[in-house]
Formats: sequence, structure tokens, C-alpha cells
Amino acid sequence: MAVPRPLDDLEAVLAETTQAVESVLEALLPLPNGPEARVVDAMRHATFAGGKRLRPFLVVACADLFDVPRAQSLRAAAAIEMVHTYSLIHDDLPAMDDDDLRRGQPTVHVMFDEATAILAGDALLTRGFETLADPDISSDPNVRADLVLALARAAGAQGMVGGQMIDLMTEGTSLNVGQITRLQQLKTGALIGFACEAGAILGQARLRERHALMAYAHDLGLAFQIVDDLLDVEGSTAALGKRAGKDEGRGKATFVSLLGISGARQKAGILANQAVGHLDMFGIKAGLLRALASFVTTRRS
Amino acid sequence: MAVPRPLDDLEAVLAETTQAVESVLEALLPLPNGPEARVVDAMRHATFAGGKRLRPFLVVACADLFDVPRAQSLRAAAAIEMVHTYSLIHDDLPAMDDDDLRRGQPTVHVMFDEATAILAGDALLTRGFETLADPDISSDPNVRADLVLALARAAGAQGMVGGQMIDLMTEGTSLNVGQITRLQQLKTGALIGFACEAGAILGQARLRERHALMAYAHDLGLAFQIVDDLLDVEGSTAALGKRAGKDEGRGKATFVSLLGISGARQKAGILANQAVGHLDMFGIKAGLLRALASFVTTRRS
Repeated sequence: MAVPRPLDDLEAVLAETTQAVESVLEALLPLPNGPEARVVDAMRHATFAGGKRLRPFLVVACADLFDVPRAQSLRAAAAIEMVHTYSLIHDDLPAMDDDDLRRGQPTVHVMFDEATAILAGDALLTRGFETLADPDISSDPNVRADLVLALARAAGAQGMVGGQMIDLMTEGTSLNVGQITRLQQLKTGALIGFACEAGAILGQARLRERHALMAYAHDLGLAFQIVDDLLDVEGSTAALGKRAGKDEGRGKATFVSLLGISGARQKAGILANQAVGHLDMFGIKAGLLRALASFVTTRRS
Repeated sequence: MAVPRPLDDLEAVLAETTQAVESVLEALLPLPNGPEARVVDAMRHATFAGGKRLRPFLVVACADLFDVPRAQSLRAAAAIEMVHTYSLIHDDLPAMDDDDLRRGQPTVHVMFDEATAILAGDALLTRGFETLADPDISSDPNVRADLVLALARAAGAQGMVGGQMIDLMTEGTSLNVGQITRLQQLKTGALIGFACEAGAILGQARLRERHALMAYAHDLGLAFQIVDDLLDVEGSTAALGKRAGKDEGRGKATFVSLLGISGARQKAGILANQAVGHLDMFGIKAGLLRALASFVTTRRS
């Protein structure tokens, strides 16, 4: 059973989860022989370039609430990280956001080439689904099919891809707070929501528990995004590992441009509190998830 | 139960399956409201641009061997066609094969733009997995998880994506027949194999039946590809609905450049016979699959 830990342990647990999920990713992405190795090389470059591993942590912390064995939750965590990484590779392409730096490393199309980057993203998405459907993740086929279905809903045209489409379509136009909220809920919130949902599915949680964790994730995800916007304005490229100031340079409306720095900071705090409010039914076991909500609003990178 | 039909009915059944799968695709790809509609619009443009619907036919014909209800097999057929269409959209991108014409229509990046084409491909792949994991396809979760797993294996870095990577990596180099065979087995054979496998999975076929249908599909798929190469040399752009002569223009080794026209035609015939040989255990019920093998080697477009 998951032992509740003091809140100041959060960074240690984040580091521990990161290491554990990277071991699983390592095992799930072996380099093949032959010329097709190039695409796996590119998948690995993007996957092992670092990153906060927020989504893997959420899967594991939510699954821990239901005493799911780590061998299972870490596989789901790896699958989500693959899907998140695919979205970054494709978003960074010249035809999309045209970014040359990600997680402090050259992006895949810079390090390899555009064709390889497109294929590496495609293959990571596919491998994510494969990992969730594989009997190694759970002996219960209902759990496996449910994980796949929930991921597909979160990642597709009515989730993450739809959010990216809106983002591209509305560049240079003036969105209001409601429109940006919807954009972010699709573009990043849906997959963060699935991270918590996956923990609940693995734990065969009751529906009200599953919904509570997804509500927590949606509020947390939005708070996370607002802090990202704040860091983009305030931070340096070196600390972020990606280009700072890029939203402003591109004329993108963000929570910060609409609410101002202090207004945005306040909204992030309200959302983090709201997120924590959804955890009441889990009592003391949800300590890490509560600590994460504080961490997200105070992070510096 | 599936009624065996005279072989000359094949084209009628192909047309009938095409119409039926297009109705299912129509229902699975509704246009949403909001700016994200653009990506669904692009998905629909590519999906409804025509095409031979070979893979849907294979799913349905194989599932018919086990008396699977058409409502189920047509959903699997639609899922595969979505995944096939995603691969075409991405392969046609400027960074890949840079094709402006497909199925007689402007390709998605020409009709829309590159970013939308990348996202439309991503969303079609995702929607394909979603369709296979949805309880509407089968009440048995083992069937759903098995379909997802088999598709992911066929479509990923060790299947279709790996084949496309090899194709790009080896452009301008001289491959031998063995190397081209492996390339095609990954690039097109894996998904054609999954079409037949999906029918077997839905029908809860015995393992030797599943393997026999996959062996049929692999031989048929290779014969299909060789005929494609022949048509590329002999055909006109108007009849093909895509640019003719493009392999030669690009210096790509094909079965035709290695074996000559008559050698390639002979090889296609041998493979088609070999494909039919795998169907013996299904007796008279496999009439349509046998007819398809003849059709594939004699088609003119």
C-alpha cells in the first residue's frame, strides 16, 4: 500500500518516478537493426531529452491511491510520456511552431530531419497505444481496452490535436479568457486529465473517484499552463530549456497578456486550490497530489 | 452465414463494401463546431477522396469466413482505412514524398496546409485506435484489446512506419529483391496483413486460421505492390489518379527495375497463386478472397 509521505518529499518522489519511468521507457524503446533504426533513434532522442515527467508522476501518484502495482502504473506512465513526446515533436516542426530547442536539446527535425521527425512522432503515438493494449500492463482486458479508449479520446481531434489546431487557427487573433481556457483544456489539459484517469482505470476506481481525479487534473493542468505563460515572460531561455518570450514574439494571447502578471499568478493559485478541493475523498493518501498542486504554482522552470 | 458468390461478382462486392464502409466512416467522422473543425475537414477530405478500399474489403471478407456480423467488421474496416489514410497524408508531405495528387485529388497539404495535414494524419491514426477500442465494435474486451495491439504492431516502427523510414533512407541506393521485399512487407504488407488478422480476431479464429489469413495477405500485398510498380511504369496519371512514372523519376529501385516488366508480372502471378494456397482450410467460403487474388494481378489502375 502507498505510504503517505511528508510534503517536502515531493521533489525526491518526482526524481524517483522520473528515474523509474525512464527505465521502463528504455525497455520499451530498444534500437532495432537495419535502416529503420534511424526512426527509433529519433524517438529515443526526444524521449530521453529530459522533461519534468509531470504526466508519469500523475499516473503513478493516482494509481498509488488504489494500490496498483508500480510495474503496471509505470507502463501506463511510459505510454503517456510517449504520446506527450510525440505531440512535442510534431508541434516543434517548421510547419507548426517551428522551434529548434526543446528541453535544452535540438529538436528532432533539427537533429535528424523533418521526415524522420514526422515518422518518430507517428511511431511514438503508435507505441503508446501498443503499450496500453499489451497484456503486460494488466491481465484484465477491460482495463486495457478502457485505457486505449480514454487515451484516444484525450489525444484526438476532440482533445490534444483539436487544441493544437485551434492554437494554429487563432494565432494573431484576440482570444478572451474563456477561449484560451478551452484551447488549453484541449491542447494540454486533456492528456494531463488522462494521466490521472489512467491511474483510476488501472485501480478499477469507482466512477466518482475517476471523475474527481480528472477534475483535479484539469484544474492542475490549467494552473500549470498559466505558470508556463508566466515563466515565458519572466524566465530565461537557459533555465527553461526552450526559447523564452516566444509567445509574445508571436503575438499570442496568453493568460498573462489578458490578466497581467499578478492577475495570472492569482488565477493559478485559485486553480491549484480548486484542484486540491477535488481530493477530499482520498484523505491522507492524496498527500503527494496536494503537494504537487503547491509545487506547480511555485516552480521556477 | 456468408454465401459464396460467383467470382465475377467480385467487383460488385467490392463496390458494395466500399459503400458500406464509407457510411461507417461518415458516422465516425462528424464535423464538430469551432475552429478545430478544420482538422476534421481535412481528415474527411482525405478519407472520402476515393481509393480502392482494398483493406476494408479484406477485413470484411475475412470476418465473413467466421460469420462475424457486418456491423462489427465494417467498424474494423473503417478503422484500418483511417490508419491507411493517415499514412498517405503523411507520406505525401513535402518533407516526405512531396506529392500533390492522390486518388485524383489535391493532397491534404495542398488543399489545406502542411500543419493541418500533419494534424489530420495524427488524428486519423488516433481515431483508428479509438474505433477498435470502443465497445461498439465488440462486447468482448479481449477482442478490442487484441485488435489494438495487432494494429499497433503493424503500424509502428517495426511495421508501416519502419517501412517508410527504410524507403526514405534507401532512396537513390541500389536495393536487391530481398531488400525491396522486406521494405514492402513493412511499408504496405504489415497493414494489409492486419486487415486479414482483424477479421480473424473478430471471428475468434483459431491461431492456425489467423496465421493462414495473414500469410494470404502478405503474399497478396506483395503481388499488389508489384502490380502498382508495373502500373507506375505503364499507366497514365489520369487512370491512376496519382503521378505516374514517379518511381523512375526518383531513381527508386522497384521490382520492375530489378526484374523487368515480364519478370515482375511473373512474380506477381506466382505470389497470387501462393496467396490462394493459404486458403485451402476455408474451402468454398473463401471464394471471394480467391477471386481477389486474380483481380489484383489483372487490375489496370
